[in-house]
Amino acid sequence: MSSGLERHSVGVCATFRGCLCNAESYRCGVSEDKQPTDTAENISAMLLLRRCHSLTRFCPLNTHRHQVAPAVAPCAARLWSSSSSEDQRSYQRVHRPSWRHALAGLLAGTGAVVAYGLHHHKAEQEDTSRAQTIEKTSAFPIFSQEEVTSHRSLEDGVWVTYKGSVYDITDFVAMHPGGDKILLAAGGALEPFWALYAVHNQEHVLEMLSEYKVGELSAEDRKKQQTVESSDPYSSDPERHPVLRINNLKPFNAEPPPEILTDSYITPSAIFFKRNHLPVPQVDPATYQLHVEGLPGGALTLSLEELKTRFPKHTVTATLQCAGNRRSEMNKVKQVKGLNWGIAAISNATWSGARLRDVLLAAGYGPDVAKQARHVQFEGLDKDVTGTTYGASIPLNKAVSEEGDVLLAYEMNGEDLPADHGYPVRVVVPGIVGARNVKWLGKIIVSAEESSSHWQQNDYKGFSPATDWDTVDFKSAPAIQELPIQSAITTPAEGAVVDRSMEEVTVKGYAWSGGGREVVRVDVSLDGGKTWQVAQLRSSDKEKPPEPSPPLGRAWAWKLWEVTAPLPPEVQELEIVCKAVDNSYNMQPDTVPPIWNLRGVLSNAWHRVKVKIREDESEE
Amino acid sequence: MSSGLERHSVGVCATFRGCLCNAESYRCGVSEDKQPTDTAENISAMLLLRRCHSLTRFCPLNTHRHQVAPAVAPCAARLWSSSSSEDQRSYQRVHRPSWRHALAGLLAGTGAVVAYGLHHHKAEQEDTSRAQTIEKTSAFPIFSQEEVTSHRSLEDGVWVTYKGSVYDITDFVAMHPGGDKILLAAGGALEPFWALYAVHNQEHVLEMLSEYKVGELSAEDRKKQQTVESSDPYSSDPERHPVLRINNLKPFNAEPPPEILTDSYITPSAIFFKRNHLPVPQVDPATYQLHVEGLPGGALTLSLEELKTRFPKHTVTATLQCAGNRRSEMNKVKQVKGLNWGIAAISNATWSGARLRDVLLAAGYGPDVAKQARHVQFEGLDKDVTGTTYGASIPLNKAVSEEGDVLLAYEMNGEDLPADHGYPVRVVVPGIVGARNVKWLGKIIVSAEESSSHWQQNDYKGFSPATDWDTVDFKSAPAIQELPIQSAITTPAEGAVVDRSMEEVTVKGYAWSGGGREVVRVDVSLDGGKTWQVAQLRSSDKEKPPEPSPPLGRAWAWKLWEVTAPLPPEVQELEIVCKAVDNSYNMQPDTVPPIWNLRGVLSNAWHRVKVKIREDESEE
Repeated sequence: MSSGLERHSVGVCATFRGCLCNAESYRCGVSEDKQPTDTAENISAMLLLRRCHSLTRFCPLNTHRHQVAPAVAPCAARLWSSSSSEDQRSYQRVHRPSWRHALAGLLAGTGAVVAYGLHHHKAEQEDTSRAQTIEKTSAFPIFSQEEVTSHRSLEDGVWVTYKGSVYDITDFVAMHPGGDKILLAAGGALEPFWALYAVHNQEHVLEMLSEYKVGELSAEDRKKQQTVESSDPYSSDPERHPVLRINNLKPFNAEPPPEILTDSYITPSAIFFKRNHLPVPQVDPATYQLHVEGLPGGALTLSLEELKTRFPKHTVTATLQCAGNRRSEMNKVKQVKGLNWGIAAISNATWSGARLRDVLLAAGYGPDVAKQARHVQFEGLDKDVTGTTYGASIPLNKAVSEEGDVLLAYEMNGEDLPADHGYPVRVVVPGIVGARNVKWLGKIIVSAEESSSHWQQNDYKGFSPATDWDTVDFKSAPAIQELPIQSAITTPAEGAVVDRSMEEVTVKGYAWSGGGREVVRVDVSLDGGKTWQVAQLRSSDKEKPPEPSPPLGRAWAWKLWEVTAPLPPEVQELEIVCKAVDNSYNMQPDTVPPIWNLRGVLSNAWHRVKVKIREDESEE
Repeated sequence: MSSGLERHSVGVCATFRGCLCNAESYRCGVSEDKQPTDTAENISAMLLLRRCHSLTRFCPLNTHRHQVAPAVAPCAARLWSSSSSEDQRSYQRVHRPSWRHALAGLLAGTGAVVAYGLHHHKAEQEDTSRAQTIEKTSAFPIFSQEEVTSHRSLEDGVWVTYKGSVYDITDFVAMHPGGDKILLAAGGALEPFWALYAVHNQEHVLEMLSEYKVGELSAEDRKKQQTVESSDPYSSDPERHPVLRINNLKPFNAEPPPEILTDSYITPSAIFFKRNHLPVPQVDPATYQLHVEGLPGGALTLSLEELKTRFPKHTVTATLQCAGNRRSEMNKVKQVKGLNWGIAAISNATWSGARLRDVLLAAGYGPDVAKQARHVQFEGLDKDVTGTTYGASIPLNKAVSEEGDVLLAYEMNGEDLPADHGYPVRVVVPGIVGARNVKWLGKIIVSAEESSSHWQQNDYKGFSPATDWDTVDFKSAPAIQELPIQSAITTPAEGAVVDRSMEEVTVKGYAWSGGGREVVRVDVSLDGGKTWQVAQLRSSDKEKPPEPSPPLGRAWAWKLWEVTAPLPPEVQELEIVCKAVDNSYNMQPDTVPPIWNLRGVLSNAWHRVKVKIREDESEE
């Protein structure tokens, strides 16, 4: 389990325009250090304790006791901080691991989870009693489902139902941040949509909705609806590793703790960041079919077996990054819309599969096609309640280039793709934003046009800091494809404390650039960017020999970096900064505000981490 | 005449290590606003006046009187400022052109040139008398040329002669910033080298040299040398347009004034920036031969006629930029080594010629070649006194890609290549730093290795701000190929004055990115980067319809941009800033110091221009 596919759900999931606090990010703000309430009720204290221990299974450094600790300690430290708010001490714990600390953290964390479960239960009770209140005091007319269903367009009015009430939201459609996707719910119940995008389940959303109430649904039709309500489209989502920091549960979005991320050059699949936009579809490999359309040879349909046997198997090590990676830093400047990702919405894996180029050639692609077509569209098998699938497209020249290395991947890190990463087949488009690496691939369409999907047209684009939701014109910016140069510090963590007696500090992180541009240098500063030193780069695990440099334009994988520097004398705090350079000599911008954008994408300013130096060496 | 080829001469031309003030940049510092002394003596006041008028010939806005003025006014303003130091007024002149102003400027400028000629004459007299002094006071032993010639290695000692004196520079060799290129002069006279790189002709260079004096050359051998000395390898260089701002005369390096640069989308050849590394070679088109080596088909030799007739003619509009463009901004942070380019070492032209890919295919290139070879080397016909030619290489995959658009160009802007731009044939490598666009092309070699030339191996590379000349390891950085995102403000000029009564200000500039990445947005700020607005982009001249967007990765030409904004109330000064974004969403870094590097290349921080607002509307 894990996911490189970048799929934001702004279309349907976004909260009402005008609310300063976005639904997704509000939720994520909560989930940064705590388990979201939805999971809390399913996780007992003992289970969590067991899972935190089981984390050592995938930790590459699990051969003896001292090395196990670093993987457990952050988990412990994170739980600890959720109850004690002493985040700044976690770095020290990671670097001087002891079982006493880990245990204390786990116990404290358990308490936090239990407390959360109670809080959630209370909130649910309040929700129910609120609904009952609405029912009791109602003096609204009664409508049948048939009457509601007759209002499904702007001309006839747009009506929806929610928990037995009927709402005329015609006037709200134009204000819906996700645009006219809201019309998909017209004439029907909101519940299945809100089940898909749990972020709507917030008090202020309900308050706004209540302003549009026009009636009650007949008791008979309400009974019918309740049967439907009970089905949770996410009920068959796979189990996930508990170490993941969950940014959103439905759809599932999570990232690994930064300290663990750069322990391995190849990210273990279990902790590879996950970015789902919809429920994980259940795909039977025996009946799976991949459809290829839009080429002179006519439609081509391939079974999984055919994909594996008719085309040579290629393997590529490629880093995938969410367009929203490091969005939380933009949120600190000014609220943006989107999941509040930290610095770990990026991971690196080895992918194997057929080359998209080979499949397109088999389906009739030739040079003449390029005269008409310029894009290759992908459709996922993951669907919303209306049957709309996730979709995206990439430029045709990337897809057919011998050097583009675009895969129809069926393996991740040498095993079948995990369910969260697109089982049985996903697209891997090296060098390109995660959002175009479509999972659970169902259809490929060669076309003159980009994908018409919401995520291609009205999301995943960059804008000037001057652009707001009132002025944004999504047509004015290109869909993100290649990503810019990026780097971040994974160790030490923000607020960590370093003992003066250590005499030096080791800084670690990752660096990557889109478009196959190789990272050639990472500069690290301990004084906020006044002076710099050059970090050591590596492109394989430490115990392995370094990989040879890839051909120009085909450096798909990140580099890990590290620098050990003496602690500067007479300072109490370090502002550690990193910035990377790729082989087009692109550099990261210095600061966040000038690259701030309303969707919080492309957050690649210098990464800054403040660390305290403790002169007193005694243990607290 | 003009030049996109980027060829720095640090190997031989750089001054002695340890001198804070670099020879080239010292010279350029002088030439920023004034004609270099070498040209001053050749330009009479009347000639200059005439040429400034003739500038209007290539100005696109020359149809009526009011529109002619902008082209002449900057010329006038510049000359004016060279004598009156009132640079800050030139913007006002440019924007409110009047013939009275232009004439005043021209007359003042004339005075400046005359004054310069006198100064230069005085300096030359001093030089001669200094040489005589050395001669008279000499009590050194006499050596024959044969004895000098026997000292041409580090083992035997390295001796050179200069103006009749003999110097043992063995101990200096290791200190020469250009490395062992200095050994090319071992056992012989310095004059031919210093004639190539006139920057050596400075007082402090002579002073340092004098410390190494060991003897005098015999009278007989001295007489022989004087015959050689009189030949100037630059004597056949072509005439250049007088509007160019000369950064170095021998070899010739010059850029157009920024205000003129963005008057035309296609830069007129006459003002296209010129970057020569050596004297312009005289090539007879009738006997010209292009040699292609390193391919299975054996060596291929093509005449100019064959190149034009055997291969289809392709036309590409491509911007070339010197790696050192905007170096002067790095010099303000800390002295770097290299020509002190302003913001106009970049220009845009239409190039026509055979595709390199087609020529390589004709010479036997096939997919098998790519298994061994990874580079295509180019050798120019321009040579130093030892016969060493200018050289560079590009990656093979760029050279053979159908989408790489690499040309063996014989036309620039619809005419034969001008002498300064590589007549009869040059390489145009769109998206790649000027230095690899080798002019006066003589040889193409497909190879497993990069060019061994100084300019590929030990120059044109980027380093951390922490790297200095004591620690630099040129092998640690890749040769610059694709350049990063770039933009600059061409109007208004630094220090310009805007009248409050104008109520608004129009800001203009260019933006470009390497690797075929299209510029998708330019943000402009009037308050130093606190707030931004989006500029209008264009990719053709205003009177022409906009060009359609090129395929992904093939946007080789710059975009010009413009924004008109109201003057903010209650401020006396504007800090105008621009930053561009390409379609990989790379951004320019905010500030210069963190990207400073010892060679002053890749200077692409936000461009900043300070402009004063004058509340008093009366004419001075």
